[in-house]
Amino acid sequence: MLKVPEHQVAGHLAVDGKLGPLVDDSGRFYKPLQGDGRGNKELAFYESFSSDTRVPDHIRKYFPVCYGSQLLEASNGSGLLHHLVLQDIVSSHRNPSIMDVKIGSRTWYPEASDNYIQKCLEKDRRTTTVSLGFRIAGLQLYEGKESGYWRPGRKEVQSFTVYNVRSILRRFVSSNSSIGNENSDCSFAPSIYGGSAGILEQLLELKAWFEDQTIYHFHSCSLLIFFDKESVSKGSASVPEIKLIDFAHVVEGKGVIDHNFLGGLCSLIKFVSEVLSDSKESSIKDRVESEKPGICTDNGNCQ
Amino acid sequence: MLKVPEHQVAGHLAVDGKLGPLVDDSGRFYKPLQGDGRGNKELAFYESFSSDTRVPDHIRKYFPVCYGSQLLEASNGSGLLHHLVLQDIVSSHRNPSIMDVKIGSRTWYPEASDNYIQKCLEKDRRTTTVSLGFRIAGLQLYEGKESGYWRPGRKEVQSFTVYNVRSILRRFVSSNSSIGNENSDCSFAPSIYGGSAGILEQLLELKAWFEDQTIYHFHSCSLLIFFDKESVSKGSASVPEIKLIDFAHVVEGKGVIDHNFLGGLCSLIKFVSEVLSDSKESSIKDRVESEKPGICTDNGNCQ
Repeated sequence: MLKVPEHQVAGHLAVDGKLGPLVDDSGRFYKPLQGDGRGNKELAFYESFSSDTRVPDHIRKYFPVCYGSQLLEASNGSGLLHHLVLQDIVSSHRNPSIMDVKIGSRTWYPEASDNYIQKCLEKDRRTTTVSLGFRIAGLQLYEGKESGYWRPGRKEVQSFTVYNVRSILRRFVSSNSSIGNENSDCSFAPSIYGGSAGILEQLLELKAWFEDQTIYHFHSCSLLIFFDKESVSKGSASVPEIKLIDFAHVVEGKGVIDHNFLGGLCSLIKFVSEVLSDSKESSIKDRVESEKPGICTDNGNCQ
Repeated sequence: MLKVPEHQVAGHLAVDGKLGPLVDDSGRFYKPLQGDGRGNKELAFYESFSSDTRVPDHIRKYFPVCYGSQLLEASNGSGLLHHLVLQDIVSSHRNPSIMDVKIGSRTWYPEASDNYIQKCLEKDRRTTTVSLGFRIAGLQLYEGKESGYWRPGRKEVQSFTVYNVRSILRRFVSSNSSIGNENSDCSFAPSIYGGSAGILEQLLELKAWFEDQTIYHFHSCSLLIFFDKESVSKGSASVPEIKLIDFAHVVEGKGVIDHNFLGGLCSLIKFVSEVLSDSKESSIKDRVESEKPGICTDNGNCQ
C-alpha cells in the first residue's frame, strides 16, 4: 500500500492530485522521475555513486540507499511512471524533528543555461543562500503530544532571514520551542549537536571528505538533519542523523573540490557550533548560580 | 623619488600617462584612491583592521602594513591626489616570482547593484572563478638571468583555463619552467610549497582563521604569493610569502563566516597540495630508479 510521506518537509507533495513521492510500509521511498531529465540525472547519480569504490564507507552512510527504479501508478493519476526507489530515511522515527538545509552559496552550475542560472541566482539572492552559503528549504519541529508539529509553509520558509535561521537552529534543539525564539533553552544541544555521534561531529566528518573529494559537485543538494525529540526527552539513546538528498543537479568534479558545497557546509558548522557553545556556557552559568552560597552585599551581610 | 613598481603583476599600471600605483626607495607603495569610493572603502578597511584587536597577530602578518594616506602628484599628471600609503611587500626581493590569485567563486557582494553583480558574474563565469573558486589575476615567473621574466599579458591571463592554472602552479615551482608546462620538474615544490614555513602551511593557517572569523567578508581580494627563485637555487634560506591585497570590496561579516573566500581557499589548497605530493612521489621514483642495480628481463639477463 503506497501512501503520501508523513514527514516530507520540502519539495512537491503528492496531495490534491499533484505529482509527488510515495512511501510504503517496508521503509521504501518512491520518488517520481521528473520528465525534464532531472529524474534520470538523479538515477544516473545513484548508479554511479553506488558503484564508485573511491567513496569511503564512512561517507556512504550519509546517503540514502537506492534500490533502482520501478514503474508505479503516479500520485497525480496520470498512469504508470518510473519512480526512483530509495530508502525511506525517516521511517524508523516516530515523531522526527527535521530540517532540510540546501547547501551552497549558489544552486546553479556553470554548464547550465543562462535562463536557468538567472532564475536560480534570483532565488539565491532572495533567500539566505548567498549570504549564509545555505538556506533552510523546509522543516518540522515536534513540540509534544498536544501541540504536534511546527511546520512553516513554503512562503514562510522562503522568507527566512539570517536572524530566523539562527533562531531555528536554536529552537530545533530546545525543549521549550513553542514559547518563542528568544527564550529557546537549547537544552538538547549537548546531546543532539554535541557528543561523539552528534550533528557537529557528523558535519565535520563530511567536511573532511569535501576538502578532499573531487569526484562530484553537489549543486542544489540538501542535508536532511533529523532526530526524535521524544526519545531524547525520555533519556533513551537516540542518535541524530544526517543524510544528503536531491541529486538531480550533481555534475562531475573533474579534479576540483566542491568549494561551493564546502563553503556552505563550513558556514553551517559555525552556526551549529555557536549554538552548542552558547548552551554549554549557559549551563555552566546555571550551575555556578545554583552552587552559590548566597550573595554578599557591600556591608558584608550575606543574603 | 617615486617610480612605477617593477613587480606589479595585476591592476592598473602607471604607464603611458595612466593612473596607477607608485613606489619609493624606502619600501613604500602608494596606491591612488579611486574616485568612485573604492579607494576610501579600502582606506576605511585598513583603518578598521589595524585597530581591531580581534585579529590575531599570526594573521596580521598576512596583510601589508598601512601608513595612512598622503597627497601626491598622480602618475597620470592630473595633479595632487590622495594615495593609500602601504608597505611595498615585494621590495626586499630581487627577482621575485609572483602570483596574484583572486579568491572566491564570486567577486560580487550581496549588497551591490544589479548592474555590478551582472558585470562581475559574467567575468566570474568567463574565468576560472566559478569553476575553481579562484582565478589567477596576474603573474610573473623569473626564469633566469638570460630569459628574465615570463609575464603573460592581461588577455592571456583572463583566458586561463583550469588546465592552465594547474600547469602554472607547477611551473611556478619548477627549475625548467621555460621548456614548457608538460615537463615542469616541480623541483622547488618541497622547499616552496612544502615545509613548516612553506606556502601550504601558510594557506592552512589562513584557512583555520577563515573557518572561524566572522568580522570581514573579503570580496574580490587577492592572495599575492611570491618567492625568490634565485636564492632557492643557490640553497640560501628564502621564505616564500603570502599577503592578502585589494580591500576595496570588503564588507562586514555580521556574524557569518566568509564561506565564499574559504571555499576558494580550500580549492587552492587542494591544487597546491597535489603539486607537492606529485613532486614527492616523483622524487621517490627517481631515487628508486637511481638505486636500481639494473633492469632484469624475462630471461634473467640484467641490463
